[in-house]
Amino acid sequence: MVNYPNKKKVQSYIRKIDGKHDTAHRGMNLEEDINLTNQYYLANDIAVIHKKPTPIQIVKVSYPERSAAKIVEAYFQAPSTTDYNGIYKGRYIDFEAKETKTFSFPFTNISLHQINHLDRIIKHGGIAFLIIAFTRVNEVYLLDASFMVEAYRKNDRKSLKYETIKENGHLIRTGYLPRLHYLEIVDQYYCEVFK
Amino acid sequence: MVNYPNKKKVQSYIRKIDGKHDTAHRGMNLEEDINLTNQYYLANDIAVIHKKPTPIQIVKVSYPERSAAKIVEAYFQAPSTTDYNGIYKGRYIDFEAKETKTFSFPFTNISLHQINHLDRIIKHGGIAFLIIAFTRVNEVYLLDASFMVEAYRKNDRKSLKYETIKENGHLIRTGYLPRLHYLEIVDQYYCEVFK
Repeated sequence: MVNYPNKKKVQSYIRKIDGKHDTAHRGMNLEEDINLTNQYYLANDIAVIHKKPTPIQIVKVSYPERSAAKIVEAYFQAPSTTDYNGIYKGRYIDFEAKETKTFSFPFTNISLHQINHLDRIIKHGGIAFLIIAFTRVNEVYLLDASFMVEAYRKNDRKSLKYETIKENGHLIRTGYLPRLHYLEIVDQYYCEVFK
Repeated sequence: MVNYPNKKKVQSYIRKIDGKHDTAHRGMNLEEDINLTNQYYLANDIAVIHKKPTPIQIVKVSYPERSAAKIVEAYFQAPSTTDYNGIYKGRYIDFEAKETKTFSFPFTNISLHQINHLDRIIKHGGIAFLIIAFTRVNEVYLLDASFMVEAYRKNDRKSLKYETIKENGHLIRTGYLPRLHYLEIVDQYYCEVFK
C-alpha cells in the first residue's frame, strides 16, 4: 500500500530542495516549519533531529561523461519508518508529521508500518509522537504515539476527530524562531511521564 | 564536496533494492551485512536501527496517466548525517559504516559534515561510532566516534592505519545470524564508559 505523493506535494518538494522558497505567498507548510525548527534546535545545540530523506527506488542511472551519475528512472517508495528522528537531552526522539485540511485525521494518512514502528520505539524506551497540523485553523498538535497506536488498532473507527486530538494532544506554541516549539511539550509531558 | 557514488556502487544499490541477490557469488558486502543484522535485531526485538534512505535531489518528475509518479531526472546528494541510527536499550545509537580495500582508512571516505554530526551526537549523550570493514582481511571493527573525530581534526594525517584501528577499535564477531554482532561491543564498551 504505497501512498505515492501527489503532484502538488512532489512539486513543493522539488521547489524546496532547489532552495527557492516563495516566502511572500507562504501558507502553512508543516514540513518546512519543522525543518526550520530543527535547524534552529541544531544551531543552538538544543537537539539533533533530522528529517530522513524520501525513500526512492532507483531503476536506471546514466553516466554522462565527466559529470555526475544521473538517475533517469526512479519511483517514490512508501516509508517503513517515520520521517523524523534524533536525540534530545540524551533521549531518542521519533515522530511523524502530518497535515490535514479537514477537521479529522484519517488513519489512511499513516501506514501500518509506521504505527508498528512507533509502537516499537515506545517499547524500547524512546519518545514517540505525531505532529498533526490542522491547516484550516492553523493549529498544530503533538499527540503521543501510544494514543495513536491504540486508536489505530482498536479498529472501531477510521479517523481521529479534531476534538479528540485537541483533548488528548498538546497544542504546540508557534513563533518566529523556532516556528514550532515542540520540544517544550516534550519537556513538560515526557519529563512527567518518564521520571 | 559531493562524493558521488561510483558506477559499481550504484549498480549494487539498484540490485539490492530490486530484491535480487546473487548470494552464490557473494563476497563481503558491509551494507548488506549491516542491514541483515539490523533486520535480525528488529525481528528479535533487540534494537530498532534502520539505514536512512540515500539522499537524492529530484529535478524532474513525470506523471504518466493512471500510474505512479515517475522521477526522470535526479542526482545523488552528499549525506549530511550518518547512514544508520536508532534505539538500543533506551539509548540513541548513531553510526556510519565504511569499507576499505586497503590497509588504511582515508579521511576522504568520510565528510566533515558527518564528523561534525558524530561529534554532536556524543555531546548530546548518544552512542556514536564507525563500523569499518577491511575487506582484504575480512575484519570489521567498531571504532568509537570520539577517536575518529579527534584524529580527523588533528590535521596531522590524512588516514587511519589498519594497525591504529585494530588497536583502538573493537573487532566485531561475525556469524550467520546476525552477520555482525556489533551490539555486543556496544554492550561491553559503552556500558563501561557510560555507567
